[in-house]
Amino acid sequence: MRDSEMSAASFHALYERLRSHAQWGDDDRRGALNHITPARLAAAAGEVRAGRTVTMAAPLAGSAPDNPEPAARHMKRLPGEPSEVAGLSFAADQLTMNVHGDVDSHIDALCHVSYGEALYNGVAPGAVTSQGASMLSIDEARDGIVGRGVLLDIPRLRGVRWLEPGDHVTADDLVAAEQTAGLRVGPGDLLFVRVGHRLRRHQLGPWDVARSRVGLHPLAMEFLAERQVAALGSDGNSDTAPSVVEGVGFGVHVLAINAMGLYLLDYLQFEDLVGVCEGAGRWSFLCVVAPLRLLTGTGSPVNPIAIL
Amino acid sequence: MRDSEMSAASFHALYERLRSHAQWGDDDRRGALNHITPARLAAAAGEVRAGRTVTMAAPLAGSAPDNPEPAARHMKRLPGEPSEVAGLSFAADQLTMNVHGDVDSHIDALCHVSYGEALYNGVAPGAVTSQGASMLSIDEARDGIVGRGVLLDIPRLRGVRWLEPGDHVTADDLVAAEQTAGLRVGPGDLLFVRVGHRLRRHQLGPWDVARSRVGLHPLAMEFLAERQVAALGSDGNSDTAPSVVEGVGFGVHVLAINAMGLYLLDYLQFEDLVGVCEGAGRWSFLCVVAPLRLLTGTGSPVNPIAIL
Amino acid sequence: MRDSEMSAASFHALYERLRSHAQWGDDDRRGALNHITPARLAAAAGEVRAGRTVTMAAPLAGSAPDNPEPAARHMKRLPGEPSEVAGLSFAADQLTMNVHGDVDSHIDALCHVSYGEALYNGVAPGAVTSQGASMLSIDEARDGIVGRGVLLDIPRLRGVRWLEPGDHVTADDLVAAEQTAGLRVGPGDLLFVRVGHRLRRHQLGPWDVARSRVGLHPLAMEFLAERQVAALGSDGNSDTAPSVVEGVGFGVHVLAINAMGLYLLDYLQFEDLVGVCEGAGRWSFLCVVAPLRLLTGTGSPVNPIAIL
Amino acid sequence: MRDSEMSAASFHALYERLRSHAQWGDDDRRGALNHITPARLAAAAGEVRAGRTVTMAAPLAGSAPDNPEPAARHMKRLPGEPSEVAGLSFAADQLTMNVHGDVDSHIDALCHVSYGEALYNGVAPGAVTSQGASMLSIDEARDGIVGRGVLLDIPRLRGVRWLEPGDHVTADDLVAAEQTAGLRVGPGDLLFVRVGHRLRRHQLGPWDVARSRVGLHPLAMEFLAERQVAALGSDGNSDTAPSVVEGVGFGVHVLAINAMGLYLLDYLQFEDLVGVCEGAGRWSFLCVVAPLRLLTGTGSPVNPIAIL
Repeated sequence: MRDSEMSAASFHALYERLRSHAQWGDDDRRGALNHITPARLAAAAGEVRAGRTVTMAAPLAGSAPDNPEPAARHMKRLPGEPSEVAGLSFAADQLTMNVHGDVDSHIDALCHVSYGEALYNGVAPGAVTSQGASMLSIDEARDGIVGRGVLLDIPRLRGVRWLEPGDHVTADDLVAAEQTAGLRVGPGDLLFVRVGHRLRRHQLGPWDVARSRVGLHPLAMEFLAERQVAALGSDGNSDTAPSVVEGVGFGVHVLAINAMGLYLLDYLQFEDLVGVCEGAGRWSFLCVVAPLRLLTGTGSPVNPIAIL
Repeated sequence: MRDSEMSAASFHALYERLRSHAQWGDDDRRGALNHITPARLAAAAGEVRAGRTVTMAAPLAGSAPDNPEPAARHMKRLPGEPSEVAGLSFAADQLTMNVHGDVDSHIDALCHVSYGEALYNGVAPGAVTSQGASMLSIDEARDGIVGRGVLLDIPRLRGVRWLEPGDHVTADDLVAAEQTAGLRVGPGDLLFVRVGHRLRRHQLGPWDVARSRVGLHPLAMEFLAERQVAALGSDGNSDTAPSVVEGVGFGVHVLAINAMGLYLLDYLQFEDLVGVCEGAGRWSFLCVVAPLRLLTGTGSPVNPIAIL
Repeated sequence: MRDSEMSAASFHALYERLRSHAQWGDDDRRGALNHITPARLAAAAGEVRAGRTVTMAAPLAGSAPDNPEPAARHMKRLPGEPSEVAGLSFAADQLTMNVHGDVDSHIDALCHVSYGEALYNGVAPGAVTSQGASMLSIDEARDGIVGRGVLLDIPRLRGVRWLEPGDHVTADDLVAAEQTAGLRVGPGDLLFVRVGHRLRRHQLGPWDVARSRVGLHPLAMEFLAERQVAALGSDGNSDTAPSVVEGVGFGVHVLAINAMGLYLLDYLQFEDLVGVCEGAGRWSFLCVVAPLRLLTGTGSPVNPIAIL
Repeated sequence: MRDSEMSAASFHALYERLRSHAQWGDDDRRGALNHITPARLAAAAGEVRAGRTVTMAAPLAGSAPDNPEPAARHMKRLPGEPSEVAGLSFAADQLTMNVHGDVDSHIDALCHVSYGEALYNGVAPGAVTSQGASMLSIDEARDGIVGRGVLLDIPRLRGVRWLEPGDHVTADDLVAAEQTAGLRVGPGDLLFVRVGHRLRRHQLGPWDVARSRVGLHPLAMEFLAERQVAALGSDGNSDTAPSVVEGVGFGVHVLAINAMGLYLLDYLQFEDLVGVCEGAGRWSFLCVVAPLRLLTGTGSPVNPIAIL
């Protein structure tokens, strides 16, 4: 076992420790969103000073080795064709997409992970059937996830373009990055950790991400618990591959969603935001995540907006 | 011709008048979003005081007479089933939906309407092919539409639960409603006009909206032009049915999208927001609209978020 | 209980009786297709004399009260648009459809029904997961279902245009109809029972078929078992609504698929075939059913071809 | 120009020559299906002697370099889950697939190719819009394509497992193969030419078929015209890549569909059939192709059935 690896016992202890921090009652369905109090949300609006907005999503991707079932849009009507409406014609289309996947930007609902035969907060996996999630669906976040967003750019910290697949971000990295950014991650923050995954994909092309991916080390989740972070986003999916945990894949997913009730935002795009943050000389902003209203959905495609 | 009806000539004159107000150059693709300046956007953040967020979308609807091709979500994986991932299992699903339609909340891109053999700003309809929109797609709004939102509740003004299908909202209604709301609609505002369409549907069930719908009178668009509104949303689709314009259906769509470059948000849901505004005693808020990044799309499903 | 109704006990006894007739071993996955021997299949080719073929399917239907999730076809490429292929352009499209439903012609695989916590031949329902059917999928019929087809036209027998919803076809009807048709239903035959459902729908428009439908009486399945029929098709779905069985909906589906291993073909279209059979003065033909190769599918859209 | 290549002028002359053979009147929409007379169809039934059926389709394929938008099937209901139907539960699913593509077995309708600004028989390309094909759709073949099938196995003729991508099948190959098979291709036959494409894909894995594919040489189409073949199928798509024709890709598609009105069946699977034909010592059979009833479709997935 390498230094970075975790035994099954260590992981399970960490899981129980993080779960014990995330106690909002047996009926809780909001998880770490409870950290976003009205006062914190109102304070986050103070981040808006320049009057500028930036997307944190990437355009839907085409077919690729890491995107075997790509989203599709089909035209329903074309302008210029004969129309049943007097005097005009419409352009219209249809969207089909997997909510989860390894390229398109999306948010995971709290029903997304079953571990130890339970979803978040002990909900039985049978709450999700072929008809969708009757509990813990993405519609729990229907009013949006709004708070102070903080971008920690780990490649910038380390002086590289991107972290290589298989590498992991530690709690020490996060602490160093917040210091470099001149801020302190705090309660109710929406934390975004850039690992450079998307830039690497853009520059070098896709690779087999199921086998090789950079993410957070599971122990780094203690940092998020202590700081009472409300959501975690990355330009990867926050998990490394291969897993460093004995007998468990996607350890960060298990800890975040299942133990901590933390919404994960996967495969975001930070290249636009990095430029704006560098220009503005600050790495925090008002952030709005607006999942679609998919009543029994396990997540949603999203376009998180940073407002500075 | 009833008093409320417009001749073809009057409509065309109105169209040209509104178009002459919307001049940001031949290459402009942002339309009325140009009204949202950084200063106005930054000022809008001042609307956030209570630290509360509200959805302005409705959950995706099922099959109904006004929704003949309903959105579908299908489960890709169920938690609890045998999993290829060590130690856990995932819930995952897929989304399919028409972007436009008469029930689900969505935004129209500026390529949505062809009138007089042109899209917005003279772009040729051939810019939209079976491969999507090569110009004026919804990705023009990729950084989100963020500004001061204003809700004008016309049924509240008139002391009714909802306006009946076929009725129309006039410029006088809008002026009266802003006075009642104690505010003045101004440059860069995102204007939301409640007609009660969705509440009526919820209470009485769906009807044939293609034949009978309440919306704005085309002449009311002059109010929006004068006030330099940046976007228009409604719980209907802003257009009446039957059309009051001789020889043109969807007159408001033509004026808004095609002449004014105004993004339309159709079939929103204001019931949650009305309650919050009543409680707060004010009808303005920070509003964030985050379209999905559909590169060549004619619009997007959205969940606009009001932040008070 | 009306005369036509069955108690739970009577139905269960019938179920067991029919199941005892359908014994091809524990590993059998072909069910009643076992009745189609090479000799019978070769003999069926003798039905081809006029050299004429007829479709037994209806075109895919649009949205309607009995078709709330209609099939869709979307254009992928249009001829005449700019093409990446030298010298020509292609038309191409995409198909999306529910395999089962109440309008489109389709075949049910032997995994379609779970009754008494088992699929056909005692296979556990868990053989079907979100990934599809690992056993008893429609690909068991990949080589096609080919044999003598026999059309029994019950409205014709009774001198009506169609049987009314709620009515049922009895074993006596089937015997009378084969006599009128001048033939005897025998081993390996593909039996098609016309009830007039589709003609009624075409003439009067759709209705609430979940509540009111004409089909076979469950007791009529004894006729099919005795005659060793290999498949059963109808212009309805072979089951009446409301069910005549105490505590069990879709009694014929249960008996046919689950007890007898009989493939059901639902919502076929016999109007074309009736005309041809009347003209030819005979009601038997070579019939070919070619399900798509959907490896783990629960059925398939089909276009059964009658060859006379 | 290599010996096998054709100049633009030679190709155009061939096109016109083949088109002059395919004259069934300006209103004709059946094309080469006109070669299947009732007498020929009835005679084809004499091919059925052993009473055996074989699929000529492959199962739907997953994502691969030659299948970037794979078909998908989603479960709508799972057996064993709580059911709204008394006493039983259903398995149900949904199918989504591109009709055309480079792996899944399908048939091309006569609207599939536009060449020289026309579809088959001079129909304008504008007959196909975003709403589908108003003329020459696959529903023209709604009654099935039934006739004598003939399989010519070119790798068997040449003593190889498969022809290499880029190679082409000549008219001489076809003549030699029919002699080896002990038959003569004749009027109304459905001709299937095996090149080994699918076996190679199965053994070696997928490759970039857009760049490198084995098919018929365009000049071989004269053989098909002289023999009055009614349809052409292959385990490739009948066209070579790169194209041997100056300035025209997919020359066989142009000649077959556009000039000759010949239905093409692409990416079939002959491995099962080859074994049966070898065992039976003959290479002809009754063949039934049953396209789905896609009213305005450009083709259909199919499972052609050989009956011996």
